[in-house]
Amino acid sequence: MEGSELTHLRSDGTAHMVDVSAKAVTARVAEARGRVLLSAKAIEALRSGKVPKGDALAVARIAGIQAAKRTPDLVPLAHPVAVHAVSVDLTVQDDGVDISAEVRTADRTGIEMEALTCVTVAALALIDMVKAVDKHGRITDVRVTAKSGGRSGDWREDEQ
Amino acid sequence: MEGSELTHLRSDGTAHMVDVSAKAVTARVAEARGRVLLSAKAIEALRSGKVPKGDALAVARIAGIQAAKRTPDLVPLAHPVAVHAVSVDLTVQDDGVDISAEVRTADRTGIEMEALTCVTVAALALIDMVKAVDKHGRITDVRVTAKSGGRSGDWREDEQ
Amino acid sequence: MEGSELTHLRSDGTAHMVDVSAKAVTARVAEARGRVLLSAKAIEALRSGKVPKGDALAVARIAGIQAAKRTPDLVPLAHPVAVHAVSVDLTVQDDGVDISAEVRTADRTGIEMEALTCVTVAALALIDMVKAVDKHGRITDVRVTAKSGGRSGDWREDEQ
Amino acid sequence: MEGSELTHLRSDGTAHMVDVSAKAVTARVAEARGRVLLSAKAIEALRSGKVPKGDALAVARIAGIQAAKRTPDLVPLAHPVAVHAVSVDLTVQDDGVDISAEVRTADRTGIEMEALTCVTVAALALIDMVKAVDKHGRITDVRVTAKSGGRSGDWREDEQ
Amino acid sequence: MEGSELTHLRSDGTAHMVDVSAKAVTARVAEARGRVLLSAKAIEALRSGKVPKGDALAVARIAGIQAAKRTPDLVPLAHPVAVHAVSVDLTVQDDGVDISAEVRTADRTGIEMEALTCVTVAALALIDMVKAVDKHGRITDVRVTAKSGGRSGDWREDEQ
Amino acid sequence: MEGSELTHLRSDGTAHMVDVSAKAVTARVAEARGRVLLSAKAIEALRSGKVPKGDALAVARIAGIQAAKRTPDLVPLAHPVAVHAVSVDLTVQDDGVDISAEVRTADRTGIEMEALTCVTVAALALIDMVKAVDKHGRITDVRVTAKSGGRSGDWREDEQ
Repeated sequence: MEGSELTHLRSDGTAHMVDVSAKAVTARVAEARGRVLLSAKAIEALRSGKVPKGDALAVARIAGIQAAKRTPDLVPLAHPVAVHAVSVDLTVQDDGVDISAEVRTADRTGIEMEALTCVTVAALALIDMVKAVDKHGRITDVRVTAKSGGRSGDWREDEQ
Repeated sequence: MEGSELTHLRSDGTAHMVDVSAKAVTARVAEARGRVLLSAKAIEALRSGKVPKGDALAVARIAGIQAAKRTPDLVPLAHPVAVHAVSVDLTVQDDGVDISAEVRTADRTGIEMEALTCVTVAALALIDMVKAVDKHGRITDVRVTAKSGGRSGDWREDEQ
Repeated sequence: MEGSELTHLRSDGTAHMVDVSAKAVTARVAEARGRVLLSAKAIEALRSGKVPKGDALAVARIAGIQAAKRTPDLVPLAHPVAVHAVSVDLTVQDDGVDISAEVRTADRTGIEMEALTCVTVAALALIDMVKAVDKHGRITDVRVTAKSGGRSGDWREDEQ
Repeated sequence: MEGSELTHLRSDGTAHMVDVSAKAVTARVAEARGRVLLSAKAIEALRSGKVPKGDALAVARIAGIQAAKRTPDLVPLAHPVAVHAVSVDLTVQDDGVDISAEVRTADRTGIEMEALTCVTVAALALIDMVKAVDKHGRITDVRVTAKSGGRSGDWREDEQ
Repeated sequence: MEGSELTHLRSDGTAHMVDVSAKAVTARVAEARGRVLLSAKAIEALRSGKVPKGDALAVARIAGIQAAKRTPDLVPLAHPVAVHAVSVDLTVQDDGVDISAEVRTADRTGIEMEALTCVTVAALALIDMVKAVDKHGRITDVRVTAKSGGRSGDWREDEQ
Repeated sequence: MEGSELTHLRSDGTAHMVDVSAKAVTARVAEARGRVLLSAKAIEALRSGKVPKGDALAVARIAGIQAAKRTPDLVPLAHPVAVHAVSVDLTVQDDGVDISAEVRTADRTGIEMEALTCVTVAALALIDMVKAVDKHGRITDVRVTAKSGGRSGDWREDEQ
C-alpha cells in the first residue's frame, strides 16, 4: 500500500492541500458527537448554583462555534470553508456532558472536520470551566455521527 | 452548592477571567495523553508507503505544537501563557495512534489546558490526514496525565 | 415575547449560528459611521507636525480595514463573509475625528457587522495613536448609516 | 507642535512600536465603560423570554473577554501584554445596555487599550445578538474610566 | 504620474481595499519561487542525520501551506480568497534550498500574493529550523513565476 | 552528522519546541534587512503622486510591525515572545525599496525570527501595494544584520 492512499500526501510522502477548485458547490451537513467525563462534584456544580448552569455551558457552546470557523487555522491541510450554520448542544448527564454539533455549508468540500473541531474545542472549554472542582475531565468518543451532501453519499451512525 | 465553586464564574453565574497577576512565576510542566482509534486500513497506510509515515505524523505533531500556543485564542477564559517548550509524541498502534504531549512554562498559571489542546488538535489533524481511507476516526481518552509546579502540588496518573 | 425573537438564540435561549446556506448570493453594501471625541491638544497634534497627519490616520485606516476581515473572529455568531471592498474615511474636526466605513460583498449575508467592526477598531487604533497627548479619547455614535442589497431592502439614515 | 508628540510616530511622521523593554513590571488595572443604545423592543427581548437573558449577554461578555486578549492583533502599535484578569459587566437599562470592563496585568505597559477593546467588542457582539429586532443599535460613550499602576499615577473618572 | 496608478490608493493617497464584488469567479493558478541560501554545514544537517531530512522540511512545507491561507491577515489590503489547493516543494541544493509553491482557487481575484506568502513563510520556517547551525540564512529571489486565469492573461517566467 | 544538530529536531528527527523556561530574561535586539526589486514605473509611482508616497509605505510598515507580533503563529516552532519595540524603515531607491527592521525584547529567547518576519511581511505588503503597475516585484537579500543580548554574543554584519 502506498502513502498516496492518504490523499493529503503526494507520492513522495510530502503533504499538500488537495485541489478542490473543480468540485461543485453543494449543500453539505455534518454532525459530530463526543463526551466529557466528569466527577460527581463537577456535575453537581454544573446542575446547581444560583443561576442554573450560569455561563458555564454558554462558554463551551460559544467556544465550539468559534472553533468551527477557525478549523482551517488549526488543521493544517483543511480548506477554508464558508461555514453557514453551527449549532452545539451540551447535555449534562450523571457522569459527564454529552456534546453534539451540527455544521452546514454550501461549498466545495465536506465539513466533517469543522464538526469535529467544534465538539473537541467545546469539550476543552468545558474542562477549563470546571477544572477548579475536577482536574481530571476526560474527552472521549469524539467522532462524526452523520453527514449528507457531497459526492460520497449520506451516512448516519445510528442507521448502521 | 453554589456556581461560585466554578472559579471561572462569579457569584451571579457570569463568566470572567480570574486574576492571576499576584501569583508567582514558577516553572510548570503538564502532560496530557489521548488516542485516535483508526481502522486497520488507516493504520496500514500510516505504517507503509514509500516514505515511511511521510508527513502524516509530522502534520499532526506540528498542528499540536501550534495549537498549544493558541490555547488562549480557543479556550475563552484561558490566560495568555508564555509557552516555553512543547513536545508531542505519536505512536502508531494496531488499532490507533497514541498521542502524548508535554508542555512547559515559567509563568503564573498552570498549562494543563495547553497540553490538552495540543493533544486534541494533533488528534484532529491526524484524523484529517487519514480521512480518505477512514472516515470514522475517533478521539478518545484525552486527559491530563501529569503535572508539576504551581501551588496545587505534583501529580502523575500512573502513580495513583 | 420569547427569546426566539433574537434569531441568534434558539427557543431554549442557547446561542447558535443561524443557517444561511440557502440564502442567495447578492451584492450587498453597508456603511457605518462614528466619532472619536478628542482634546484640542490631540486635534492639533493630528493637524500639524512636519509630515501632515503622518502615519496616525493611516494606522487607524489600516486597522479598520483589517478588522473588517476579522469580524467573524471577533463577533462569535457572525458568519464568515467574503469581504470584497472596504474603504475608511477619517476626517479631523475641531473636537474629534469622524470615521466612516463602507464595506461591500457578494455573499449570502449582510455585512453591517463588518462595517461597524471597521469603524470601532479604526476608532480604537486612533485612540491608541494619540494617547500620549490625550488619555481620554471617547468613541461615540457608532451605528449603521446605510445598507443596500439583501432581502430587507435599502435604507439610508439621512433619508429618514 | 511636532508630530513627535504622538509617541507612536517618529520625528519623520512614520509609525513605530515604542520601546518598553526597560520599563518595570508593575501591577496595573484599567477600567472602561460604554453604552449600546437599543430600541424598546430590543430591550424587551433581552429582559424577557423563557430563559431570562439566555445566552445573549453571555455571548457579548465572552466576546469582550476574548477581544481583550487579542488587542495587539487589532491595534497595530499595541504591545503584547500578559492579560491577567478580565471582567465584563452588562446591565440592561430602559434605553440600552451599560457595559463596563476591568482588566488587570502585571506587565510593562498600561492596559487601557485592552479595557477599551473589551468594551467595544462586547458592544459589537451585543448589537449582533439583537439585530433581528433592532438594526440600529448605537455604540456610545466608550472611554477609560479608571486606571491605576504605572508611572503616570492613578485616576478615576468619578473623582474628577 | 498620480498615486492613483497604485490601485490600492485612492486619489488622495489613502489606502482602501478595491472592490472585486463584480468580478467573475474563475479558476486561477499562481506559482512563486524563491531560495534560502545556507551554509555548507546547514545543508549537510538537512541532508544527513538518522532520519533523512526528518521533520525539518515538513515544518517549512506546512508553515507555507498555512501561511497561504492567512494571506489576508498578513497583507492588509489583500482580499479574503478561498484557497482551493496549495503545494510546496523544497529542494536541497549545495548552497541552499529552492522553494516553489503553487496555489489554486476559483474566486474573484488572483492568488499571486498567496503564492508569494507561501514561499516566504516556508523560507522563514526553514531558517528557524536550521538556525542552531547557521544564523545567517538568507531569503532571496522570491517572485511570481507563473499565473493563469483572470482578466490579465497567462504568463510564465521561463517563456519570456 | 546527526539531525540532532538542528536543535528543533529530536534525535529521531521529529520536531519539538525546545525548552527555554530556564533561560534568563535579558534585553535583546535584532536587526534584519532586505530589498524589494521593482520596475522604474513602480518606483516612480512610489515617489510621485499628489500625496508623496501616500499610504503605500505606511501599509508596508504597519504590516511588518504586526507580523513581528505574529511570528509564533507563522513559524511553527518559534516561542511566543513579548515584543517590546519594533521599527521598520523603507527607503525608496532607484531600483527598489530597502527595508530594515529592528526588534527589541526583554525575554528568554532571541528575536531574530521576529526581525526577519517583519522585513519579509513588509516586503509582501509592498509588493501587493504596487502590483497594479509591477507584477514582478522580487524579494531579495533578507537576512539578520545585527543582534545583541543573549548567550551567543553580539554581532553586526558590517563589522565582519
